[in-house]
Amino acid sequence: MRITDIIEKSVPVASTMRNAAFDFSEMTTSVVAVVTDVVRGGKPVIGYAFNSTGRYACGAAMRARFVPRILSAEPDSLLDDAGIIDPGKVMQRMMMREKPGGDAERSVPIGTIETAVWDAVAKILDRPLWHVLAERFASEALQKVPCYVGGGWYKPKDDLAALHDEVRRHLGDGYTHLKIKVGGVSIKDDLVRIESAISLIGAAERLAVDANAALSVDRMLGYGEALAPFGLRWFEEPCGPLDYASFARLAESYGAPLATGENLFCQQDVENLFQFGGFRKDRDILQVDPPQAYGVTAYAHMVARVEALGGSRQRIFPHGGNMMSFALVAGLGLGGCEAYPGVFAAFGGFADGMNVHDGEITVPDYPGIGFEAQPALYQIMRGITDV
Amino acid sequence: MRITDIIEKSVPVASTMRNAAFDFSEMTTSVVAVVTDVVRGGKPVIGYAFNSTGRYACGAAMRARFVPRILSAEPDSLLDDAGIIDPGKVMQRMMMREKPGGDAERSVPIGTIETAVWDAVAKILDRPLWHVLAERFASEALQKVPCYVGGGWYKPKDDLAALHDEVRRHLGDGYTHLKIKVGGVSIKDDLVRIESAISLIGAAERLAVDANAALSVDRMLGYGEALAPFGLRWFEEPCGPLDYASFARLAESYGAPLATGENLFCQQDVENLFQFGGFRKDRDILQVDPPQAYGVTAYAHMVARVEALGGSRQRIFPHGGNMMSFALVAGLGLGGCEAYPGVFAAFGGFADGMNVHDGEITVPDYPGIGFEAQPALYQIMRGITDV
Repeated sequence: MRITDIIEKSVPVASTMRNAAFDFSEMTTSVVAVVTDVVRGGKPVIGYAFNSTGRYACGAAMRARFVPRILSAEPDSLLDDAGIIDPGKVMQRMMMREKPGGDAERSVPIGTIETAVWDAVAKILDRPLWHVLAERFASEALQKVPCYVGGGWYKPKDDLAALHDEVRRHLGDGYTHLKIKVGGVSIKDDLVRIESAISLIGAAERLAVDANAALSVDRMLGYGEALAPFGLRWFEEPCGPLDYASFARLAESYGAPLATGENLFCQQDVENLFQFGGFRKDRDILQVDPPQAYGVTAYAHMVARVEALGGSRQRIFPHGGNMMSFALVAGLGLGGCEAYPGVFAAFGGFADGMNVHDGEITVPDYPGIGFEAQPALYQIMRGITDV
Repeated sequence: MRITDIIEKSVPVASTMRNAAFDFSEMTTSVVAVVTDVVRGGKPVIGYAFNSTGRYACGAAMRARFVPRILSAEPDSLLDDAGIIDPGKVMQRMMMREKPGGDAERSVPIGTIETAVWDAVAKILDRPLWHVLAERFASEALQKVPCYVGGGWYKPKDDLAALHDEVRRHLGDGYTHLKIKVGGVSIKDDLVRIESAISLIGAAERLAVDANAALSVDRMLGYGEALAPFGLRWFEEPCGPLDYASFARLAESYGAPLATGENLFCQQDVENLFQFGGFRKDRDILQVDPPQAYGVTAYAHMVARVEALGGSRQRIFPHGGNMMSFALVAGLGLGGCEAYPGVFAAFGGFADGMNVHDGEITVPDYPGIGFEAQPALYQIMRGITDV
């Protein structure tokens, strides 16, 4: 068994989204196909992935370094004891000739390829990835995955009415927990939005807010003071992702949960957050993005390490409202996943039939990650191997 | 005045170098030309740079994001009050639509382009870059730049004799301060190499050692204990670049200077090193690489910040033995620069006539960075605009 080819294509994410920190008008993602020599129904088994959202496509690094390293490896050196491709060994092979540090430059291309390898492996085993992960990493799989919906972007006109409509729509769609933006207007105006959302959702502990790392330290502390009385579900990215000192400062005075991690790219970043960021393991939420942070194997190791340090996997909510994060949440029994229906074009959302009921999505049984059951996205994925 | 084009080419560094952490056999660098509409002698003024050594070429990110952002800007918006291109504004323009965090993925392409813009600006002003930097950042320029030589790689055969020859050659070439590798053999064998080098150099405080972030924590502590009695000039990268806890642990017990920073990519990394890494501002050495960490403007701001925090610019030794780091050391009055003669092909070393005497190099008066006086490198640079 071997990997015979790895193909990448940069695809625009085509989102008009804008948060407190930046806009997505140029955003792209790398769609990756890992082709194997295993044949099913007359066709090679192909694993797919994409590099989630918020980080640009990275195909050049794949073509220059990571793909040639994999394809030049002795095929048997990348197999596990059962003779199946071992994603962890593929990941190690990609790390050849990489200088220590500077992880973000390689953790996204490596993580995306590694995730696609897992998709191929699960398909070769003819089982859902979540099921394979539960077995490989000795965790208890979820049958229903808690899923909250992210939104609440600022609208230039009739913002409050638009927020009302949006919250109502999400509740009508079966979501029970929501996340909205903060930091794009004054604190006072944000409090009006928050109160308004809570009044519809019915409970502050079902509402999270997200500042997207765009607040100054003073403003962060101001938000902390203003938000504390609500007892929100969490206050996300109150400061720069590597600004451990400010995170720790807020954690001292803000009693409710904080959340961060979508802009951490390696295990060392997480260790530093825990050690220096004042991250409270009994309540704070960790949101590392799997394909952006070296992939699925690294994620499973991170989960184990979080627990060894006294944290809980139930407070890990991977960034990226997509099938990759979903498989990890289900397979490793994490806290839950996020959803951004309709925001990131084909790259947001889940497979057909994965509807949310009372804030949860029942795990599907598609082989692999399940992209084949997500028609608009699968059309893009299939397209890149039809050259 | 405007930037009319920015051209990048990936060039192999063609080094057989191998340190304790990885080898350079696949290493490339991005050579960049920033073309302006200023004409001198019938030709446009062009600024050049390359992304130093150790990080791979990054032209795809330049072409997809940073170059189009610069070329699409209103030209006047990138000028300073005197009507000259402002590298700081060019840098800010490149940061459009970049998500917080993940700096290493963009700090290298942005820093390389920004450094090339400085080369163009200094040429437009018809002055050496070091002179322009001293003026712009109100620092006292050096007339002679302290320069140490790096080497001491392990040889598979007759290693100790080869080290002897190498050290003697460097001393004969005018160097007084050297740096050799550690961590590639046993501590005991490394001590033999160190004693041997010191016996030739004449003083332990003229010898630094570099572990290239490849030691385990136990081995790092073992080296710390074994090296302490020597009172070496510094012990470089004793642990992972973001492993602040281990650096702090060593700093508690190791009295002589430690050094790190070539694998830090943004100001926040430096802040964290100072705040959590136990970095001793009265002795430890900071080695951030200019074109790899957002460029010259960001470097000058970092230097100011280090001093505001109680450190000294005389303990800043930029990574990268090249004309870019040299200009910064001379212009901002930093501690000194490194040299790797003959190691990184055309990308190592300085311009013609910049010979080292008694451990120092007299600053040249070539306009700009001075690549034009470095024939083998300039041939590569000029070649990329001759398309």
